[in-house]
Amino acid sequence: MLARERGGALELLRVTYHLDVRAAEADARAEAVAREQTVEVPRAVVRDPEVAREALGRVERLEEDPAGGFRATLGYPVATTGLDPAQFLNVVFGNSSLHEDLRCLDVEPGPELRAALGGPRHGILGLRRATGVEGRPLTCTAIKPMGLRTPALAGLAASFARAGIDVVKDDHGLADQPWSPFRERVRACLEAVERVAAETGHRTVYAPNLIGTPERVRDALRFAEDAGARAVLAAPMLLGLPAFLELCRSSSVPVIAHPAFGGALRIAPEALFGRIYPLFGADAVIFVSFGSRFSQGEEACRRIADRLRAPAGHQRPALPVPAGGISLESAPKLVEFYGRDAMLLVGGDLQVEEGALLERSRRFVRAVREAAPLP
Amino acid sequence: MLARERGGALELLRVTYHLDVRAAEADARAEAVAREQTVEVPRAVVRDPEVAREALGRVERLEEDPAGGFRATLGYPVATTGLDPAQFLNVVFGNSSLHEDLRCLDVEPGPELRAALGGPRHGILGLRRATGVEGRPLTCTAIKPMGLRTPALAGLAASFARAGIDVVKDDHGLADQPWSPFRERVRACLEAVERVAAETGHRTVYAPNLIGTPERVRDALRFAEDAGARAVLAAPMLLGLPAFLELCRSSSVPVIAHPAFGGALRIAPEALFGRIYPLFGADAVIFVSFGSRFSQGEEACRRIADRLRAPAGHQRPALPVPAGGISLESAPKLVEFYGRDAMLLVGGDLQVEEGALLERSRRFVRAVREAAPLP
Repeated sequence: MLARERGGALELLRVTYHLDVRAAEADARAEAVAREQTVEVPRAVVRDPEVAREALGRVERLEEDPAGGFRATLGYPVATTGLDPAQFLNVVFGNSSLHEDLRCLDVEPGPELRAALGGPRHGILGLRRATGVEGRPLTCTAIKPMGLRTPALAGLAASFARAGIDVVKDDHGLADQPWSPFRERVRACLEAVERVAAETGHRTVYAPNLIGTPERVRDALRFAEDAGARAVLAAPMLLGLPAFLELCRSSSVPVIAHPAFGGALRIAPEALFGRIYPLFGADAVIFVSFGSRFSQGEEACRRIADRLRAPAGHQRPALPVPAGGISLESAPKLVEFYGRDAMLLVGGDLQVEEGALLERSRRFVRAVREAAPLP
Repeated sequence: MLARERGGALELLRVTYHLDVRAAEADARAEAVAREQTVEVPRAVVRDPEVAREALGRVERLEEDPAGGFRATLGYPVATTGLDPAQFLNVVFGNSSLHEDLRCLDVEPGPELRAALGGPRHGILGLRRATGVEGRPLTCTAIKPMGLRTPALAGLAASFARAGIDVVKDDHGLADQPWSPFRERVRACLEAVERVAAETGHRTVYAPNLIGTPERVRDALRFAEDAGARAVLAAPMLLGLPAFLELCRSSSVPVIAHPAFGGALRIAPEALFGRIYPLFGADAVIFVSFGSRFSQGEEACRRIADRLRAPAGHQRPALPVPAGGISLESAPKLVEFYGRDAMLLVGGDLQVEEGALLERSRRFVRAVREAAPLP
């Protein structure tokens, strides 16, 4: 008896898909997905009843989508994943991603997978500890543009720190380019924010961007930790989700997830950013908010934030980080919308007016600190 | 002078996108993508002319797409990638993937990135060496379904080897599940094909599926190599492309790329499977073919196969592996279409008739060996 059972029933990983099919095809299509994602053979080839019971996916619910097509919730025996993060993705949307009539809408891993994958190690609490901020939303910005040399980037970090911003991250496009090599930049920016802290007492967290192959990311994490970084940034879809999970497992500081390359997936943002990124270990998740240069509706944003903050089971809450070209002017409205447990990320808009960076950054900090009352 | 130059001009990474916009917006939208993918600030914030010249993307071509919308080819200075595989993806389609009006159609990395990322280490020649097959297409199948125990899977491998199939791979859903743990399966299947080789003289290559976090994949590769595997299978998008690249760099045997989770990307299959997978090191690339249970047109299949076999520059050719539920009956037609330098993958269809696996496998082998004349 190899199957993992709970109270006599197999534990299931549940995945909801949108099927772009007509009513006459819906049943057969959903059954085909159940096979495609597990046994991957015609039903007739599943001759062993134990295989059918223990490994074959099943259709748990199938209903018309008011917006057209169907929604199918499939249950996959958790053992099909081997409790491995890459194989988890394979069962969720491996071969089925190659069928253009399917979209992945939601993922409910269940307690066993949740425990195996681990979720955030630091979460909201870890970000609050690192920044020392209680009872209000956090502020965040990025040093950029790519192409600036290290002294200019460190100068930006110092100005943002002086303005009182809580977290200053590398722009996600800052890698190990010739203009500002990774190690040189990390050292310079950490020194810059520490110098300001000695002056003003406000200790901004500088989060360097970890990007590269797994080996390079491992080296970069060790370097950043040793240099004194109190948080790091990484894009799970650029690194690969299983590599991101390994990073989160080994990081002694909170990991902020960047959404780059994440929109490339035919997986609903609520599922990818709201469920999968935190499940794989993100402590804070940057996502494009309404009111930005990206088109994402308020409802999707609310669902992402809610899922990050109130995960099922014993998973730690992760910090929502709305972003994507938010203007200084819209900050108060966003504070009101996202509430206290969030970090607002305003990037380029702090730099649009030449010579006014410090003043605009201070306005951003004030806007978030003064927004009240918060839930 | 940090920029890398060739004959006075910056070397560019060229990426073509489809823009779902109207004529009046096309210019501005293309310029916005050029910024989004590099400096990621409004144009006014790029105050340093050196930054504009060395780091800012530029629109090289913009034309109406006969099928609607526009096609834009953007040039990004190669230095923006830092010659790193994850940052390469970031420049190709990082933030822009979050804009739903964009799709990535093509990628032309140029010689410097091509050399840095490395491409296939073994390629077509490596697969031919491993199998000993010259002058005809190769045959391939998979042991499945998931849920079978190791002796049953090894028994399938033996039957396929006895029928004379060149490559028998793990089904991509076989991971490290309780029914057939990875190490036990690899040992048993390698023994099975060796036993048949001693009997028949035909030495089938068994390719185990490497899946998991980077550390697990590294361990699995070492184990497979030590156990005598002469090729391995991995799904680049499940592992994460940079982790896949690291695997290819360290593998002493050819790596066959599986497309699982690859369809989840809003990147044209010709670009992902035809260009990016081999660029990152795949020696053979499985893709869903026309005539399968997936919908992919002949033209796209031809382009994928052509790009794999005739890459630009000094990159080694990779072996196209059409697959996706190909029936035994359609094998001759596919041999004719794909020509000699291809490997046909027929999976479940060899098992549909109970008790006829050996006979159907032999028919598959004959169909491919006898198909003639081939280009």
